[in-house]
Amino acid sequence: MQFILTFSCPDKAGIVAGVTTVLAQQGADITETHQFSDRSTGQLFMRLAFSTPENTSMADIKTCLAPVAEQFGMNMRLHDAAVLPRMIIMVSRFDHALLNLLYQVRVGWLRAEIVAIVSNHQDSEATARQAGIPYYYWPVNAQNKTEQEDKLRALVHTTQTDLIVLARYMQVLSDSLSAEFSGRIINIHHSFLPSFKGARPYHQAYARGVKLIGATAHYVTADLDEGPIIEQETARVSHNLSPDDYIATGRGIESQVLARAVKLHTEHRVMLNGHRTIIFS
Amino acid sequence: MQFILTFSCPDKAGIVAGVTTVLAQQGADITETHQFSDRSTGQLFMRLAFSTPENTSMADIKTCLAPVAEQFGMNMRLHDAAVLPRMIIMVSRFDHALLNLLYQVRVGWLRAEIVAIVSNHQDSEATARQAGIPYYYWPVNAQNKTEQEDKLRALVHTTQTDLIVLARYMQVLSDSLSAEFSGRIINIHHSFLPSFKGARPYHQAYARGVKLIGATAHYVTADLDEGPIIEQETARVSHNLSPDDYIATGRGIESQVLARAVKLHTEHRVMLNGHRTIIFS
Amino acid sequence: MQFILTFSCPDKAGIVAGVTTVLAQQGADITETHQFSDRSTGQLFMRLAFSTPENTSMADIKTCLAPVAEQFGMNMRLHDAAVLPRMIIMVSRFDHALLNLLYQVRVGWLRAEIVAIVSNHQDSEATARQAGIPYYYWPVNAQNKTEQEDKLRALVHTTQTDLIVLARYMQVLSDSLSAEFSGRIINIHHSFLPSFKGARPYHQAYARGVKLIGATAHYVTADLDEGPIIEQETARVSHNLSPDDYIATGRGIESQVLARAVKLHTEHRVMLNGHRTIIFS
Amino acid sequence: MQFILTFSCPDKAGIVAGVTTVLAQQGADITETHQFSDRSTGQLFMRLAFSTPENTSMADIKTCLAPVAEQFGMNMRLHDAAVLPRMIIMVSRFDHALLNLLYQVRVGWLRAEIVAIVSNHQDSEATARQAGIPYYYWPVNAQNKTEQEDKLRALVHTTQTDLIVLARYMQVLSDSLSAEFSGRIINIHHSFLPSFKGARPYHQAYARGVKLIGATAHYVTADLDEGPIIEQETARVSHNLSPDDYIATGRGIESQVLARAVKLHTEHRVMLNGHRTIIFS
Repeated sequence: MQFILTFSCPDKAGIVAGVTTVLAQQGADITETHQFSDRSTGQLFMRLAFSTPENTSMADIKTCLAPVAEQFGMNMRLHDAAVLPRMIIMVSRFDHALLNLLYQVRVGWLRAEIVAIVSNHQDSEATARQAGIPYYYWPVNAQNKTEQEDKLRALVHTTQTDLIVLARYMQVLSDSLSAEFSGRIINIHHSFLPSFKGARPYHQAYARGVKLIGATAHYVTADLDEGPIIEQETARVSHNLSPDDYIATGRGIESQVLARAVKLHTEHRVMLNGHRTIIFS
Repeated sequence: MQFILTFSCPDKAGIVAGVTTVLAQQGADITETHQFSDRSTGQLFMRLAFSTPENTSMADIKTCLAPVAEQFGMNMRLHDAAVLPRMIIMVSRFDHALLNLLYQVRVGWLRAEIVAIVSNHQDSEATARQAGIPYYYWPVNAQNKTEQEDKLRALVHTTQTDLIVLARYMQVLSDSLSAEFSGRIINIHHSFLPSFKGARPYHQAYARGVKLIGATAHYVTADLDEGPIIEQETARVSHNLSPDDYIATGRGIESQVLARAVKLHTEHRVMLNGHRTIIFS
Repeated sequence: MQFILTFSCPDKAGIVAGVTTVLAQQGADITETHQFSDRSTGQLFMRLAFSTPENTSMADIKTCLAPVAEQFGMNMRLHDAAVLPRMIIMVSRFDHALLNLLYQVRVGWLRAEIVAIVSNHQDSEATARQAGIPYYYWPVNAQNKTEQEDKLRALVHTTQTDLIVLARYMQVLSDSLSAEFSGRIINIHHSFLPSFKGARPYHQAYARGVKLIGATAHYVTADLDEGPIIEQETARVSHNLSPDDYIATGRGIESQVLARAVKLHTEHRVMLNGHRTIIFS
Repeated sequence: MQFILTFSCPDKAGIVAGVTTVLAQQGADITETHQFSDRSTGQLFMRLAFSTPENTSMADIKTCLAPVAEQFGMNMRLHDAAVLPRMIIMVSRFDHALLNLLYQVRVGWLRAEIVAIVSNHQDSEATARQAGIPYYYWPVNAQNKTEQEDKLRALVHTTQTDLIVLARYMQVLSDSLSAEFSGRIINIHHSFLPSFKGARPYHQAYARGVKLIGATAHYVTADLDEGPIIEQETARVSHNLSPDDYIATGRGIESQVLARAVKLHTEHRVMLNGHRTIIFS
C-alpha cells in the first residue's frame, strides 16, 4: 500500500521524529520527504510518501497518527496513492489545454480519472465522445447561470469529483461556487499574473509592449485572477508578432502550465500557505 | 567607413529600392538589413548597416539620401559606427548592474565610452576610481533635487553624453528631465513589468506568490515604470526562498537585462513604435 | 499576390539595390527583409517577402529577376506564398509529435497540407482517419526496406510532396533516399545533439547525469543524427526523475521543436550555409 | 547551533524515524529535510538541517548518531553550519567566473572563505590584491607541472582548504591530484557536456551549428570533462553570431553556473550517486 501524508502545524522540535516513529511502528518505508519551515510565520509544512505492508488500512494509519496530530496541533490529510483523483474539465471553445490533459492522462503522465467534460459550447463534443467521456453542454447566460451552476454542483456530487479544472473556460464562476469548492478549482489564465488580469490578456500584453508573455495556473477564489498561484511560465515574443501570434504562442505555454499544475495538485504536492502555495516537487 | 542608417515612414512600394539604390551609387556594401512593416499602422521601420569606400563622409551620404527621405517622408537617422556612444551611468547603493556594464565595456562586448558615474551615495567611488572614470557624488533630497538635476543636465552637455543609464539609481527623475532626454534614458526596474511597479518589487512579488520573478529595461518617461520596454527576462523562484533570496536571484537578471538593453540601444537596434519598441537584432 | 524570394551569392556592393529595384519596377511592396552576410565565407544570404499587383505572375517576376541573378551569380528561389507546402508525416508508435503537427495545421499556425501519414505501425491509423488524411501502413524489416522506400518515393511523386517530416519515425532511412530528398526531410531527434546520438538517448542522458535534456530538429543526411540543425530546445531534469520521466518531459519539447522547425521550413525561413542553417525569423 | 547532516545507506523502513528520534532527544529542531530513494539501486540519500540548544557540541551529536549509523550502515557526514567552507580559486586569463565568485562572497549569497587565488598568469593579481586575498602566480609548463602541483597540495593543507574551484583554469590537473581531491574540485567547462569536450568548445559548437550553447559545472576526475555534473545551463545563439560572440554570451552562463554549483556544494546540497549527482535544493 502506498500513502501520501501532508500536514502543517506550528514548528517545534520533535515533529518529524514524532510522525516518522509512528509510521515506523506500522512498518512503513518512507520513500519521499518534503519539508518547509516558514520562518516568517513559524509554520511547518510537510509531505511524506510511504509504503506499508499489504494489510495496512488507511483507517489503521489514521488511528495511529491521531495522537501525534493532536499533540502538535496538525492540520493533517492522508491519501491512498492508488486511488485516482476524479476530475471534471470545463472548457469553452479553445481546446488546446483540454487536449493536452486528455493526452497526458492517456499516456499515464497524469494519473487521474476524467469523469466529465462540461462546456458552454458544443465544439469539444466529438473529442469527448472519442475519449469515452460524458459531455455536458450547458450554455450560460445571465438568466440561467445559477441554474447551470446548480447542475455542476450536482454533477460534482454524483461523480464524487475531487477537482474541477477550468481549461480555458471563459465564464466567471459565481462567488458562492468558488467559495464552496475552495482549493479544488484550478484555472489557467493566459497571462503572467498579476499582469493583465481579466479579458483579452494577449491584446493587453501587445499594447503594453512586453517582451515575454506568460500563463498562470491558480486556484479559483472569489477575486477574479487573484487566487493562489500554482505554476507559471513565460515565452519570448518579438515586435513582428501580432496579438494573434501571441495567442498561438500562448497555446503551448497554457497547455503545459495547466497540465503541470494539475499533476502537482493530484499528487498532493501543493499546500496552501496563506495566499501563497508551497510546491513539493 | 561603417555606417548605420535607421528610418521610418509610411509603407509603400519602392522604399527599399529607393534607399539601397542611393547607397549603391555611393559604392556602399550593405552588411545588415532589418525591416518591420507594422500592418496595424501602415508604418515601415528599417535599419541598414553598410560600409563605404574610405573617403566617403557622413555628410556625403546624408546629402545623397535627402531626396529619397523627402520623397517618402522618412524620419531618418545616420550614425558613424566608429564613433563610440557616450554614456553616464547613475547608481545608488547596489552596484551589480554597474559592475556588469563596466565589465562588458572592458571586454569589448559593449562598445561605448562611460564618461561619468553619478551617484547619490559614495559606495561606488572606489570602483569608479579603479576604472578611471569621473565620479560625481550628488546626494539628493527634497530641497536640492532641482539643483542636482541641473548639475546632471550640465554634465550631459559638457560630456556630450548620448545616453543616461540608471543602473539601480533609486531616485525618481523629474518629469522635465525625463521629457528633455526622452528616448535617451534607460532604467532597469527589478520586476517583470507591468507587474510590481514602484517600490520594493521583490517584496511585492513574494507577497503575491508568483513562481517567476523578472527584470525590465525600459526608456524613462514621466510615467513611473511605464516607459517603452526594451528587454525583459524572468527566473524561477520557489516557496523556500525569502524576499532577500529574490533580491539575490534578481541581481543576475537585472545585470544581464540592462546590459543587453544598453547594447541594443548603442548599436541603434531599438526603434520606437508608439509606446512599443522594435528590436532589430 | 504574395511571394517569397530567397537567394545567396558572393557578397558585393549593389546586390540589395539590384534586386529591390527590379521588384520596385514590378510594383512590388516589400513586407519583410532578412539578410545575413557571412564574413567567414564572403557569402550573402537573403530572404524577401513582397506583394505585387494582382495580375503579376510568378513567371513574370522570374523573368525580370533573371538578369540580376545572372549578374551576381545568385542561387535563387521564388515561392508563391499562397501555395500550401505539401508534406508527408512519418511516425512509428509515439504520436505526440504527430498530434501536435495535426493540431497546428488545424488551427492555422502551420500553413501546410498534410497529404499522407506513413507508418511502420498501425497505432495512428484512427488518428489519420479522424483527420481525413490517407494512412499508409508499411511495416519495415531487413528484407522489405528497399521495397517500402520505393513505395515512399512513388508516394512523394504522386502527391507532389515538398517535405517529409519524421515525427518520431524510428527507422533509419537509406543513404540513397536521404540523398535524393536532401534538404526536404526533417527529423526530430530526442536529445540535444550532438550529445546522445543513436538509440535510447533519454537513457543515455540519464546515465551521464546531465541536468538538462533536449530535442533537436534537423535535416536528414546520410550521416545519422549529423544533419544541419534547424531548431533545438532544452528542459531541466532533476535527480528524482527516471528515464521514463525524461521521456514524458521530452514529449513536450520534441513536439514544440519539430513544429517550429516545420513552420520555419514551410515559410522558407531556413537557408543552408554549408553544414549550418540560417534562420530568418 | 546549526548543523547539516547528510547520509546514504541501503533503503529500508525505520531510517528516518531512527535518525530524527535521536535528534529529537538532543532537542534538535529540524528546519530542512531532503530525501531521495533511488529505486534502481535501493539506496537512500538524505540531508537534514537542524538547530540545537546552544550548548550542544558536534561531538555530542556524532556520539548520539553513531548507533543508528552503525545499525543502518550509513555513510554519514555532519557539518557545523556556522563554519565557513574554505576554498582556493584557480584561474588563467579569463576572469569573469572569478569576479562573480568574489562578488557573490562579498554580498553574502555565497557563504565561504576564499583563502587564495592561484593562477598560471598574472592577469588577476590586481583583482586579488583589491579583494585582500593572497595571489599565487605559478606558471605551468611540461617541466614544472609536478612541482607546481606539489605547491598547490601544500597550500591546500596549510590553508585547510575544503574546495578547489577551477574558474576557467586552462591547465589539466594530473590524475593523481584529481584522485587525491576527488569530490573536492569543481570545474566550469564552457560547453553543454557531454557535447564539445576538450579545447575550444565554442568553436566546436559554432562548427556544428547548434542553436543553443551551454556551460557545465562538474567535479573533476581523471577523465577529462567526464566528472559528475553538478549544474548546467544553456543560452540561445543565432546564425549571425561568430565564435567570439558565443564566447561573450558564454561568459554570463559560465559565471552563473559555476557560482550556483559552488553554492550547492558549500551548503552540502550535492551528494554523489555513482557517476551522477543528487541536488538537494
